[in-house]
Amino acid sequence: MQSSRGGVNSIRSVFNLSARRMASANGKVMTMGSLNPQVKTMEYAVRGPIVIRAVELEKELAHGVPKPFKSVIKANIGDAHAMGQKPITFIRQVLGAVANPALLSSPDLPSDVKNRVETILGGCGGKSAGAYSQSTGVDVIRKHVAEFIQRRDGGAAVDPENVILSGGASESIRNVMKLFINRTGGRKVGFMVPIPQYPLYSATIEEFGLGQVGYFLNEENKWGLDESELERSYNESLKEFDTKVIVIINPGNPTGQVLPRENIEMIIKFAKKHNLFIMADEVYQDNVYAEGSQFHSFKKVLMSMGDPYDKMELASFHSVSKGYMGECGLRGGYVEFANLDPEVFVMFKKMISAKLCSTVLGQAVIDTVVNGPKEGEPSYGQWKKEKDAVLASLKERAVLVEQAYGSIEGITCNPVQGAMYAFPQIHLPEKAIKAAKALNQEPDFFYAMKLLESTGVCIVPGSGFCQKPGTYHFRTTILPQPELMRDMLTRFKSFHEKFISEYK
Amino acid sequence: MQSSRGGVNSIRSVFNLSARRMASANGKVMTMGSLNPQVKTMEYAVRGPIVIRAVELEKELAHGVPKPFKSVIKANIGDAHAMGQKPITFIRQVLGAVANPALLSSPDLPSDVKNRVETILGGCGGKSAGAYSQSTGVDVIRKHVAEFIQRRDGGAAVDPENVILSGGASESIRNVMKLFINRTGGRKVGFMVPIPQYPLYSATIEEFGLGQVGYFLNEENKWGLDESELERSYNESLKEFDTKVIVIINPGNPTGQVLPRENIEMIIKFAKKHNLFIMADEVYQDNVYAEGSQFHSFKKVLMSMGDPYDKMELASFHSVSKGYMGECGLRGGYVEFANLDPEVFVMFKKMISAKLCSTVLGQAVIDTVVNGPKEGEPSYGQWKKEKDAVLASLKERAVLVEQAYGSIEGITCNPVQGAMYAFPQIHLPEKAIKAAKALNQEPDFFYAMKLLESTGVCIVPGSGFCQKPGTYHFRTTILPQPELMRDMLTRFKSFHEKFISEYK
Repeated sequence: MQSSRGGVNSIRSVFNLSARRMASANGKVMTMGSLNPQVKTMEYAVRGPIVIRAVELEKELAHGVPKPFKSVIKANIGDAHAMGQKPITFIRQVLGAVANPALLSSPDLPSDVKNRVETILGGCGGKSAGAYSQSTGVDVIRKHVAEFIQRRDGGAAVDPENVILSGGASESIRNVMKLFINRTGGRKVGFMVPIPQYPLYSATIEEFGLGQVGYFLNEENKWGLDESELERSYNESLKEFDTKVIVIINPGNPTGQVLPRENIEMIIKFAKKHNLFIMADEVYQDNVYAEGSQFHSFKKVLMSMGDPYDKMELASFHSVSKGYMGECGLRGGYVEFANLDPEVFVMFKKMISAKLCSTVLGQAVIDTVVNGPKEGEPSYGQWKKEKDAVLASLKERAVLVEQAYGSIEGITCNPVQGAMYAFPQIHLPEKAIKAAKALNQEPDFFYAMKLLESTGVCIVPGSGFCQKPGTYHFRTTILPQPELMRDMLTRFKSFHEKFISEYK
Repeated sequence: MQSSRGGVNSIRSVFNLSARRMASANGKVMTMGSLNPQVKTMEYAVRGPIVIRAVELEKELAHGVPKPFKSVIKANIGDAHAMGQKPITFIRQVLGAVANPALLSSPDLPSDVKNRVETILGGCGGKSAGAYSQSTGVDVIRKHVAEFIQRRDGGAAVDPENVILSGGASESIRNVMKLFINRTGGRKVGFMVPIPQYPLYSATIEEFGLGQVGYFLNEENKWGLDESELERSYNESLKEFDTKVIVIINPGNPTGQVLPRENIEMIIKFAKKHNLFIMADEVYQDNVYAEGSQFHSFKKVLMSMGDPYDKMELASFHSVSKGYMGECGLRGGYVEFANLDPEVFVMFKKMISAKLCSTVLGQAVIDTVVNGPKEGEPSYGQWKKEKDAVLASLKERAVLVEQAYGSIEGITCNPVQGAMYAFPQIHLPEKAIKAAKALNQEPDFFYAMKLLESTGVCIVPGSGFCQKPGTYHFRTTILPQPELMRDMLTRFKSFHEKFISEYK
């Protein structure tokens, strides 16, 4: 395919997996020779070798091993709390009392918090979060999600039956992708994914034996999405795959672009023309910073376009891990289906039933997000203040990152319109590229590992997200708190200048 | 294979999936025709059509639809809290404060609870359960699990690196099974599973395209496990599969047997002889009721057998969903590996990294289980009392269920030595079997659906767990609280007598 999948070599070299070892028998049942081949080839760069090394470095520092830096700064993953963001009080008050209902008798708990807790527990078996929920999730929370979507989109009533709760959006995304697996031979089902993309998609496509069909985002036009590129990508893919699905990430990860409404309409028309199932990854819907940018949900645009578009199949995803919440570790997310074949829906529910249910506490967090305090309720003031402060600070850091990287020679950086990342391009000298290839590493992997070893700054090489051949990038989050962010940018700039002068 | 897989027909008839419908195109991308074939054929009877109907009946009752019963009694699933079991105070106090650390300043929180909360949060990024953990789980909790295993088994130190936390044991079980998938053609990897078995295994084997190799438990000998049957099953399987794994469920689900130590030694020797990877599902390790029965972990027995057995590959699983905790909805579990190939282990960790991490709050619950209050700590007394009361009550109900079913004509029931289930055999009249087949249903499905519709009692037909051809069973939990249990047994007995007289 047209995408660059360079990370495999990098991983091989780090883990030192040679053909010799893979063939070794060593008397074991499960060896590299008998292992699921897709597990061998799949990659997930956001937690790949650079990050594994960063964790080691942290441990070494803690044990007093001298390093040219005092701390590791992890800008590799969209993990807000790990970078010092404080949880929203309302969310944690509800969660604490759902976990320990004895707290409901506390006079310190605001009445709207108690009310939410009682409603959630009322939907749980035996009024306990320790009971399994239905595999689809707690009904009253699904209803609140449906009401939230309706409010957000200003549209018609949403059927709670179309909402399935899950342990983060990732689980729902993987579940939907699983529907398209076919082991009976024949051509693989092709998934159109943006390049660069979030590696959950490439990893899962590989693991499930599906086909990756990359369409390039236009770096020269702020990572925008061109119809001609969609057509090229789709048409080329048909040589190899039975392409049935288009994945859109909006706001973009790792690219941070926010799609204008016309762009979404174009994509929907394109999907209709080629009979594609749309997967809309909208987990950053609260993270829009750029002036003039606005989030439009695929569901809303699709429905407003009328027949035949409002009959199209769509799965859209949301999560409690991003936005102003940043509650990654609590694992709450959902998929909303539109126009899924009813018989397929029955099979989907049967499929997820073998996994029992997602964490009920994660589901409770979803409730706090889709059913937050309303004006006039006792928690509203503090909730609003905390939420606004987080989003304002993220906006500031989005600008700071763009400006900082943009001002470094040999680096270009698009505006961070939304989400939590910048994806700057590094213009690497030929000598550096040669040095990397000599080590059987992707050049941006080589660069990122050197950055980590000499400064403690942990970013993810662009090759982990796929990128246009011959271009090199990295993804950095905008999550370090302002002071740490300045520290990181200083370390980065000094490393970059040294690196360029060494390899020019 | 030798197992009876009757449930498919039952599911087809309930969902009314005919070939006609499966071929329908209906203009959609994802149809029954294009759906992942394994999703169509997999089954998970514990949440299958009978249970779906039970949920409908509950809703109908709530809306005032007249029924021949006043309530639905769900004895289909091991969901203790849903059946009225109260959570352990210590667990919920820790969990509440991990979720909402503001509670740490409360004078009502015992010092040992605070201490646990601070330790857990100290292992979390930004001291927040909202940060992602490593994919393997929070390090300090893994360490506590390793210490727990060492205490339990009285053996050598356990390496925390071999412990991987997950969202319930199910997730770990599926992850280990995933290692054995091979889509490159050739023979399927065979998994030896007990018949009857817990349908997570049959469902996952089907979903992953693996091979199910059933070995029959000996109903005439209290669901014991015979070496000759293992040999027969293994040898026959080789005609079709490359059999590499043996799954043991101890204490047994759905059969409730507890394996004596000699039996475990026999299984380990058998596995060694045929070079099998052992998966030991030990989630009911705290649920042992019968006089003279005792839980022995596979890890302990394997290690104590010395060379070459102590070099064998073993994955053993535990969970917070069962035992005295019953915290199913919180999703905490783990796998401990022994002797896994180090390179395969690296690949395993890479594979789970794409799923980010399991719920940190579920991980915190694991901590409360493996690191409960110790004698002398302030929470110890109440914790001990609550734990003992739950286990004593389960033991009473285990006896009650066995005696009650055993006293009904046409039903035989083995002792419930452990776990949370009885798996009685129903001796169905020929006329009932014919009536069922005329409806294209398994006879025990037919029986269970009639039981549900006429009494509101929800059990799972034995065909969902596989059973010896020509025998019919059902699984019932022992979880209804004593009064409800008596109600259930009364409803059951009266239905059964009517059914038998109708069809004799």
